[in-house]
Amino acid sequence: MQEKRISNAVVKRLPRYYRYLGMLMKEGKDRISSGELSRIMHVTASQIRQDLNLFGGFGQQGYGYNVAYLREEIARILGLDRTYTMIIVGTGNLGSALASYVRFQDKGMHVTGLFDVAPERVGTKVRDIVVQHVDQLDDFLSVNEVDIAALTLPRQGALDVLPVLARHGVEGIWNFSGIDLPVGEGTVVENVNLSESMMELTYRLGHRTARAARETEVQEGQQEAGTE
Amino acid sequence: MQEKRISNAVVKRLPRYYRYLGMLMKEGKDRISSGELSRIMHVTASQIRQDLNLFGGFGQQGYGYNVAYLREEIARILGLDRTYTMIIVGTGNLGSALASYVRFQDKGMHVTGLFDVAPERVGTKVRDIVVQHVDQLDDFLSVNEVDIAALTLPRQGALDVLPVLARHGVEGIWNFSGIDLPVGEGTVVENVNLSESMMELTYRLGHRTARAARETEVQEGQQEAGTE
Repeated sequence: MQEKRISNAVVKRLPRYYRYLGMLMKEGKDRISSGELSRIMHVTASQIRQDLNLFGGFGQQGYGYNVAYLREEIARILGLDRTYTMIIVGTGNLGSALASYVRFQDKGMHVTGLFDVAPERVGTKVRDIVVQHVDQLDDFLSVNEVDIAALTLPRQGALDVLPVLARHGVEGIWNFSGIDLPVGEGTVVENVNLSESMMELTYRLGHRTARAARETEVQEGQQEAGTE
Repeated sequence: MQEKRISNAVVKRLPRYYRYLGMLMKEGKDRISSGELSRIMHVTASQIRQDLNLFGGFGQQGYGYNVAYLREEIARILGLDRTYTMIIVGTGNLGSALASYVRFQDKGMHVTGLFDVAPERVGTKVRDIVVQHVDQLDDFLSVNEVDIAALTLPRQGALDVLPVLARHGVEGIWNFSGIDLPVGEGTVVENVNLSESMMELTYRLGHRTARAARETEVQEGQQEAGTE
């Protein structure tokens, strides 16, 4: 199926569709109308139709969407129909959280290596994987193909491993290090910046007026109150 | 100073300005032009002028911006000129990571309570704070004013504590639980969804073309290549 070119805003909404469709499947629901989906997701029905239409439109007039089929198509679009190998560089609390998060495995993400610089962590195990020293990363990548490197270590450490990752063609970087990483053209960086997230929260706490609160919500999730 | 109403996109950029200005201060830089800031941040100079103009404009023609003053003003706008009390509900790896993250303290965030349901965690300490059982949350909030609750626990657990938080007027929720939380009008929810972040990464890995890669970058950070 030919996908139309889609905006980043839509890409950010797809995982949410995927999540809600999974919940509906668990509830044994076979099909759903854009109106119903609108009510449970607090997104307008027209937004839903518009988003899903970008992928060729899975709905049928008067029938709605086939939940399982729609979920499978969205999974395919999101790239969840294949598996990925991931290494985690930095095995503090955050890195350990990622390594232990079973939900990632459900989505085809397999952690194949853990690395750290701290001597007290090297040699320990997280979820049956032995933590290796970052100095061994180069050798590891020479014999293991890795799709994604999660960088859960401080700024300088993240900068230090970048050339090693680039040399071995690791094309996905999940960056928790709190800085902007200088990477080459073909490399995809997904940033998770907890400090910035916290500052957004404090900003919004300080700028709450009924009007501002509503507007933030609408802009953030392209949401509108459901008609329930 | 009167702030104009600003969009969510600008709010998301402010922490990044704050971060870069902090770096410049450390380097001993007193002032900076929008052109220089543009080059190091990979944002267009006109974008920078437009963003900062929303807050009354701190720059002077031919002089540029006073780094320390601009950073202080942005800190004030972000609400970093005051302190916040935060509790963390869920003290697994992710909750422990938040509790241990010293950078939050620099920004006025004080963790005053930790809560969990797991018997093996209750009574243990994270950073000198004893983990209490979630059943004690109600009592704790009766005597302690809390600005922000970080919810680093599974979906159902997060839903379970919401009424307790609402009853005691906890107005900021930092939600790591992976679901959309139904909260009242005055409550601010900042979502960090690691599963969705991972899916954005896999989507972008699967849809890389030179053109798509460039466009994603531009949309995400409103970036343009610097002129360096």
